[in-house]
Amino acid sequence: MQMIDGGICAVPGVRASGARQGKWGVALIAASGTAAGMFTTNKVRAAPLDVTAEHLAATGRLEGVIANSGCANAFTGQRGLEDAREMARLLAGFLGTDEKKIAVASTGVIGRYMDMELVAKLFEDAKAKLRDDKGASAEAARAIMTTDTRVKEIAVEHKGVRVAGIVKGAGMIEPNVATMLCFLYTDADLTAETLKGCLKDAVQDSFNMLTVDGDTSTNDAVLITATGQVKCRLEDFSEALRYVCIELARMMAKDGEGASKYFETKVTGAKSERDARLAAKAVAASSLVKTAVFGADPNWGRIICAVGYSGAEMDPAKVTLGLEGKGQEVFMVKAGSIVEGALEQAREIMSGDSITIKIDLGLGKATARGFGCDLTHEYVNINANYTT
Amino acid sequence: MQMIDGGICAVPGVRASGARQGKWGVALIAASGTAAGMFTTNKVRAAPLDVTAEHLAATGRLEGVIANSGCANAFTGQRGLEDAREMARLLAGFLGTDEKKIAVASTGVIGRYMDMELVAKLFEDAKAKLRDDKGASAEAARAIMTTDTRVKEIAVEHKGVRVAGIVKGAGMIEPNVATMLCFLYTDADLTAETLKGCLKDAVQDSFNMLTVDGDTSTNDAVLITATGQVKCRLEDFSEALRYVCIELARMMAKDGEGASKYFETKVTGAKSERDARLAAKAVAASSLVKTAVFGADPNWGRIICAVGYSGAEMDPAKVTLGLEGKGQEVFMVKAGSIVEGALEQAREIMSGDSITIKIDLGLGKATARGFGCDLTHEYVNINANYTT
Repeated sequence: MQMIDGGICAVPGVRASGARQGKWGVALIAASGTAAGMFTTNKVRAAPLDVTAEHLAATGRLEGVIANSGCANAFTGQRGLEDAREMARLLAGFLGTDEKKIAVASTGVIGRYMDMELVAKLFEDAKAKLRDDKGASAEAARAIMTTDTRVKEIAVEHKGVRVAGIVKGAGMIEPNVATMLCFLYTDADLTAETLKGCLKDAVQDSFNMLTVDGDTSTNDAVLITATGQVKCRLEDFSEALRYVCIELARMMAKDGEGASKYFETKVTGAKSERDARLAAKAVAASSLVKTAVFGADPNWGRIICAVGYSGAEMDPAKVTLGLEGKGQEVFMVKAGSIVEGALEQAREIMSGDSITIKIDLGLGKATARGFGCDLTHEYVNINANYTT
Repeated sequence: MQMIDGGICAVPGVRASGARQGKWGVALIAASGTAAGMFTTNKVRAAPLDVTAEHLAATGRLEGVIANSGCANAFTGQRGLEDAREMARLLAGFLGTDEKKIAVASTGVIGRYMDMELVAKLFEDAKAKLRDDKGASAEAARAIMTTDTRVKEIAVEHKGVRVAGIVKGAGMIEPNVATMLCFLYTDADLTAETLKGCLKDAVQDSFNMLTVDGDTSTNDAVLITATGQVKCRLEDFSEALRYVCIELARMMAKDGEGASKYFETKVTGAKSERDARLAAKAVAASSLVKTAVFGADPNWGRIICAVGYSGAEMDPAKVTLGLEGKGQEVFMVKAGSIVEGALEQAREIMSGDSITIKIDLGLGKATARGFGCDLTHEYVNINANYTT
């Protein structure tokens, strides 16, 4: 897996740009190819996602994406749908294509109507800059940032095929509501159907291990477009896509709202893959584990407790629990027995800013990995005054 | 429903006491009667609960309860079981009864062994004070407080029957792991089987609407003992028990870790009771709703979003959403339409310290109520350094 520069514009034929004004921004991406998407399972689905899902179902192709920050355009009824369609028409007109080949996405406050005048103005600014140079990808990523503190983009080349993506999403510290938008590009030659299957697998091991399934925002969307210029083996593409999605998930966890530390959970020895995923996610999502990480408090009972309520098959007498970080490793529990005298080293490891929590359930061979960050004062600050 | 003084000792025949030393404490309660209990569903169940469940199954009666703070005695294997049995033996010896008629409960750090020398010392202190005067109930409640900031007790008399309880539990702001211990007493004459059914119903509408089902601590326990001195109608007893449990749940929410504000969710118009409960709980448990309450930010989209992912049947076009507090009421959404100009009053109501969030799903007749508190800096402080 070779890292390359340029973000999504590292895939030939992908152009991007963005424009911002205060909390509002518009990102444009132009690229022609087969396409697939995954959307929130929230029963309140934002208008732009309804429009995008309809478009993808109709054509299986995309020519471009228009996305905005500043307003989620969710819970906005008929007017919201009209606004989303208008955004698609704006970009379709400029690209000279059918609006059914345009995807629309939004992030921001729920239950407010779009300021379409401002969107049109930002669209004009952005369309004049649409290009494929090195800064274009980051400019698009920046245009849709909300509480994100940095641009999150990646591009790789793997056995001749390129896969790249940008992602927006920072509220992942608490999996409830923060919107994730991810736009992926590849030069692989794949049908929309194949793309969809690969996307689903990659998302399962990456973004879904950061969020809790089902507890998604009204606006979450992951889109992939394949320009079709490169013939490659499906497994090479899948491997590259999975790598890109996991790296983007890691970037999101590291940029979690108010986050000061990053941690991963590594579950091994689970009876089934489902069990491994349940346990890895429960620990990564536990507010008490997150606050303990923030405070470098080696309160490992909270980890055991989260595994206990995760729904995963578990026998306390078989659990092994350790921490890895700062080039060290320590076990607090081995095969169900408490290791005396481990707490000092555990505290030392937890004082680092990148920690791996290792849980072996001792029941089988299934594994999973979860991604998380700590819960801090800054998280409370950010979310106590979001709309104001 | 008449409120009476004395906490659990308002039920004739109930004696209580407590002793503390630093983070450790021992509470004793003596009362003879039929009994029932409900315990955590966590797969890591603390040793004292294993012992108590075994005792209740064997005898269906209790003569006393011994509970400690300072150590959860969870994930402590065989040694933990022996320590819990030893605690039962201590109290059984003093009361001159079979240890199988003693309940044991613990709260504190998971994965540490009991300091049995200290427990024995505190037991000696407490047993010398066992009594039924007005301060005894509060003394027992205080002995098992952890991050609780105040004693939580209640007693009522309703159509001749008395029901009373004390409760410990303060981490309810995040339903993951904080232990709840609740000891209920009544003078009603009921079989253990009947008690169990009534307890289950009452817990469902009270403590379970504060926590999320299944996501319980390793140590959660609710016990009820009926001394059998009063013949009463089952429905009168049930009503009193439900009232007591709901009031105790409210006290817990108000005393949530770091909480500065209390709120309730009232869901109406749900298609089924299950739906109503799912929606009421999801909103009460959402970290983003909690931080918005803390910041008095009328970001009602987060409420809609939580309903959307709750699993409840929902049609955005039929939802009505309002706030009540400070003697005012305001609707931000009526039958799916956003009410313009409501935000200022919403902000005013949210600046109060007791808020009701009203959600009508417009789909049926089922209702439910959830209990919550805000998420504050103080919560992060408390949980970042719990074991240290």
